[in-house]
Amino acid sequence: MREAFHSDLQTIGAHLTRMCTLVESAVADASAALLEVDLSLAERVIAADVHIDELQVDIDERAVDLLARQSPVATDLRVLVSALRMSATLERMGDLGEHIALIARRRHPEPALPEADREDFRRMAELTVAGIRDAQRVIEERDLALAAEVEKRDAEIDDLMQRIYARLDRDGSAYTTAQVTDLTLLGRFYERLGDHAVSLVRRIGFLVTGTTVDPRSSATDVDDI
Amino acid sequence: MREAFHSDLQTIGAHLTRMCTLVESAVADASAALLEVDLSLAERVIAADVHIDELQVDIDERAVDLLARQSPVATDLRVLVSALRMSATLERMGDLGEHIALIARRRHPEPALPEADREDFRRMAELTVAGIRDAQRVIEERDLALAAEVEKRDAEIDDLMQRIYARLDRDGSAYTTAQVTDLTLLGRFYERLGDHAVSLVRRIGFLVTGTTVDPRSSATDVDDI
Repeated sequence: MREAFHSDLQTIGAHLTRMCTLVESAVADASAALLEVDLSLAERVIAADVHIDELQVDIDERAVDLLARQSPVATDLRVLVSALRMSATLERMGDLGEHIALIARRRHPEPALPEADREDFRRMAELTVAGIRDAQRVIEERDLALAAEVEKRDAEIDDLMQRIYARLDRDGSAYTTAQVTDLTLLGRFYERLGDHAVSLVRRIGFLVTGTTVDPRSSATDVDDI
Repeated sequence: MREAFHSDLQTIGAHLTRMCTLVESAVADASAALLEVDLSLAERVIAADVHIDELQVDIDERAVDLLARQSPVATDLRVLVSALRMSATLERMGDLGEHIALIARRRHPEPALPEADREDFRRMAELTVAGIRDAQRVIEERDLALAAEVEKRDAEIDDLMQRIYARLDRDGSAYTTAQVTDLTLLGRFYERLGDHAVSLVRRIGFLVTGTTVDPRSSATDVDDI
């Protein structure tokens, strides 16, 4: 019984890891579609989101089923509750990757990004993808030192977003309205992705240390506008 | 034992209802602060968000504690898992209300909303607040007919956002860059609030009918950009 339980728990963990991989690909590909003005890549990201959604449904059904059949307590219970929350976070991250691809597609064959902003977005995408990759390793290896890296990158993403917003305010006349709208939303999508990566690693921190994640200090609150 | 369990479950339900009330106030007050250019009201919304966050922590601790002590199955288990999810949604809705207030505060003493967009935002705020109020009644009374109302309002909110975005595209030169940024974000915040209200009533639908909420058809996917 106990062995079966842990095998089920491992399946859930493997599916969470798989979700991370798909989200990382979605964000990396959506960013490449945006930066390289690649329509077919944008289309692929949009079409692939359903696989992330399916994994969430699967994880949630397994977790609720395990809660019902095995009535876990202590660490096992915390792992299952965390899995439910992390799958919701990852599903949302997949949506955000899709949104980036939708903007790339909407402006095609024009580039959505003005030349002046390309480099900041390239860097923001790089930090975001690295954050997701590290979050995956934190989930797999429970390495809390890496979690600190994810938090540091998130702060850098926030700084970049502020810089992009400040440039919009300063050089407004150089942009079309559509560009301002796109850059505002894109900045926000990457910033939210960074927050979500932090929220993933904080959940693992909670599992490892047992210290509650208080939303007053969590990523959902960090998302300064 | 069973009686104590149901009393605990009722406490969780009462706290979810209270969260709804606070979120409804936050969004109503933030919208009034935005429309009436009222700094002290904006400040109050920003300061009050912590109470919503505290209720989430409380609900989650109680739900996890009940899962551990009572090992519920069937409906009771579904209610607890739904409570965990709804508290996360409501916490996020509180953040979005706070974000609206932050924009009102940032532009003070200037109005963040240009005159041409006031009426659409007034209507969007009205629909959003009504949707949150109805979601609360759905949570309290399990009235799925009202849930359909929430979905209908969400569609109206989406239409208004599209109309605002179309006006930005068309009359771009009439706006400052800061206005375009604000309107883009504000449109998105209300649109997300509408989506979250839908997600709350769909969770109740799941509890009442037992039909799984599939994220492929859920509010998180509806959020068209």
